[in-house]
Amino acid sequence: MSNHVYKLIELTGSSPQGIEAAIENAITRAAKTVRNMRWFEVTNTRGQIENGKIAHYQVTLKVGFTLEG
Amino acid sequence: MSNHVYKLIELTGSSPQGIEAAIENAITRAAKTVRNMRWFEVTNTRGQIENGKIAHYQVTLKVGFTLEG
Amino acid sequence: MSNHVYKLIELTGSSPQGIEAAIENAITRAAKTVRNMRWFEVTNTRGQIENGKIAHYQVTLKVGFTLEG
Amino acid sequence: MSNHVYKLIELTGSSPQGIEAAIENAITRAAKTVRNMRWFEVTNTRGQIENGKIAHYQVTLKVGFTLEG
Amino acid sequence: MSNHVYKLIELTGSSPQGIEAAIENAITRAAKTVRNMRWFEVTNTRGQIENGKIAHYQVTLKVGFTLEG
Amino acid sequence: MSNHVYKLIELTGSSPQGIEAAIENAITRAAKTVRNMRWFEVTNTRGQIENGKIAHYQVTLKVGFTLEG
Amino acid sequence: MSNHVYKLIELTGSSPQGIEAAIENAITRAAKTVRNMRWFEVTNTRGQIENGKIAHYQVTLKVGFTLEG
Amino acid sequence: MSNHVYKLIELTGSSPQGIEAAIENAITRAAKTVRNMRWFEVTNTRGQIENGKIAHYQVTLKVGFTLEG
Amino acid sequence: MSNHVYKLIELTGSSPQGIEAAIENAITRAAKTVRNMRWFEVTNTRGQIENGKIAHYQVTLKVGFTLEG
Amino acid sequence: MSNHVYKLIELTGSSPQGIEAAIENAITRAAKTVRNMRWFEVTNTRGQIENGKIAHYQVTLKVGFTLEG
Amino acid sequence: MSNHVYKLIELTGSSPQGIEAAIENAITRAAKTVRNMRWFEVTNTRGQIENGKIAHYQVTLKVGFTLEG
Amino acid sequence: MSNHVYKLIELTGSSPQGIEAAIENAITRAAKTVRNMRWFEVTNTRGQIENGKIAHYQVTLKVGFTLEG
Repeated sequence: MSNHVYKLIELTGSSPQGIEAAIENAITRAAKTVRNMRWFEVTNTRGQIENGKIAHYQVTLKVGFTLEG
Repeated sequence: MSNHVYKLIELTGSSPQGIEAAIENAITRAAKTVRNMRWFEVTNTRGQIENGKIAHYQVTLKVGFTLEG
Repeated sequence: MSNHVYKLIELTGSSPQGIEAAIENAITRAAKTVRNMRWFEVTNTRGQIENGKIAHYQVTLKVGFTLEG
Repeated sequence: MSNHVYKLIELTGSSPQGIEAAIENAITRAAKTVRNMRWFEVTNTRGQIENGKIAHYQVTLKVGFTLEG
Repeated sequence: MSNHVYKLIELTGSSPQGIEAAIENAITRAAKTVRNMRWFEVTNTRGQIENGKIAHYQVTLKVGFTLEG
Repeated sequence: MSNHVYKLIELTGSSPQGIEAAIENAITRAAKTVRNMRWFEVTNTRGQIENGKIAHYQVTLKVGFTLEG
Repeated sequence: MSNHVYKLIELTGSSPQGIEAAIENAITRAAKTVRNMRWFEVTNTRGQIENGKIAHYQVTLKVGFTLEG
Repeated sequence: MSNHVYKLIELTGSSPQGIEAAIENAITRAAKTVRNMRWFEVTNTRGQIENGKIAHYQVTLKVGFTLEG
Repeated sequence: MSNHVYKLIELTGSSPQGIEAAIENAITRAAKTVRNMRWFEVTNTRGQIENGKIAHYQVTLKVGFTLEG
Repeated sequence: MSNHVYKLIELTGSSPQGIEAAIENAITRAAKTVRNMRWFEVTNTRGQIENGKIAHYQVTLKVGFTLEG
Repeated sequence: MSNHVYKLIELTGSSPQGIEAAIENAITRAAKTVRNMRWFEVTNTRGQIENGKIAHYQVTLKVGFTLEG
Repeated sequence: MSNHVYKLIELTGSSPQGIEAAIENAITRAAKTVRNMRWFEVTNTRGQIENGKIAHYQVTLKVGFTLEG
């Protein structure tokens, strides 16, 4: 059990609503194809500006998931 | 078109409400004097504490904008 | 007055609600035993994922407080 | 549209001709199996030396591409 | 031959026995599905503690392998 | 339960036997006064050399433990 | 003479031709309004990909120039 | 009041006398044109050597100042 | 003897006089309550500016001390 | 054979022609006195500006070579 | 006595047996030509993989030694 | 002239008097055997503590010098 091996993938989620929403969009999209996700770590927070306002946040994160068997 | 040159400036926005509000305050203030802002990147997130509570968040960001002609 | 000495401690707060809530949980808990907290700086933002959703955010921060006399 | 999610992969391209050629070799190879690549970022530049001369450059880059649907 | 392109993946191996054992568990697991692995680089060394003792080491590494054709 | 707050302390353990032994010495010593330790992360690995041989390894680590109530 | 003060600005130049061309575009554009530029340092190298090919390189650099009087 | 926005600029000061003198030269020069400077942070300390002696120190710092209204 | 365990604490000292004075203020204050301090390492050098002059330097340092028995 | 020991030296090469030329100048010069060079890694890319144009590129690299016997 | 000057060199040791053995190989080889070595610090841990197994570990370290007279 | 190649060496100077004195001790010692030193860059500032006071400062620096012909 303590010999688990995890793989980390790196994703960028985006959202006009904020940082947490951008993270959640990335996790939700990844959950369609990746099972057994266990943790994430934010590596970059940025965003696009249009007409002097924030158009959307873009948050890059590493996601770790258990490799089965 | 692909030969654009951008300048990056570094700003710290603050807000008692949270991280996104601090970022937005910085962008809104910059928009008064800077045109053609295109993106931002968060480089530091901190805050002031008063009487055991967060008085305000302070978020430092780099903002990139297109240099005209 | 300008010869103050500060100590920095490192804490990880967690919350299912978001990044600010995790920071605030850490500050609130520290305020039970630490007086004169002055500032914090976020050093890491991560979280746990369960069943393809974010179970809680975990934010690590350094907190600075004035050492008396 | 602003809710796109991107995946980042990390590649090392090599070439005896120079840094840009090494980057282009990596992108060209990736294009065989990855669609919708959008940007890259160089994370390391190195090379092999043989008989006192540069045998080839090796450039490591992260490549971001849009995850569909 | 000097135009090889490599892909890097990031893995976390764990073991109660030590750092090398955690690295080897990650490589052994990856070898089930990845061919032509060439090198690894350790990016993080940590572990879990239970009852005042190290329960297992967790070592994160990047693994580079040759992309065929 | 997901609102736990953790404190991180930084320790340097040393041992003539190797890296894991230095880590374990630090954890064992900390366990005398710190309860509920949960994880560690290595931040520096170094050592002293005497007469052309390694006299002892010195490993610096951060240790996280749960703050009660 | 050895008491000179310099200011550093950060720019991103872009070019479809390569890294040096992107740097030179940034310097040429800056030279229109900044006098006494003395040195630059590359802080980031990236680019945009379109249809599986590099559309243009984007190089971020700090540029130092002497502040007069 | 807690919604202040600050701008950061980066300067290199030099002095044959030492590190503090180089910092003070940079601040004094900046004070000619920048109002409301609030803090600085050293990002690099270097110097020039001539005839086996230090000719002058060069200290790079970020300076933060309040953006008015 | 070579199995010593050290604890590291992080302090910020301040002084209007300079960097060394700020470091010494931090060490002197710590010596009131911490025994067996062995080394320090500077992790940040900054300061406050008032009326275009440096009001005081603030130097953050890690201090290592031997944990007894 | 797998017990080779390598030494790393750090060099800065310069050239008015570009980044690769600066790297090659450094390697060519080192080859006059260093045998068995095996690899290099770029650690810094900068340059001098004169009259609003790049006078020469300066690239710092670490070079690894096999220590014999 | 407290005015000692030290030089740091950077070495990569390798060994099929593990991280400590790779470090010790580097120190042992350096001891043939370098006197008064005092400490080392690990800056990189990596390795070569052959046929899905670790062929040898490669550990890069800085070694400090006292410069005489 | 713009094709100069420089070598960088890393030194640690120490002094009970302060940071600049430690740097100067390192440069003075190096000048006994190294010609054509051109610049230095501080990479670490630390010190030893004895009986609750700073016994000496230790400053690590890289020193660049021109490689002749």
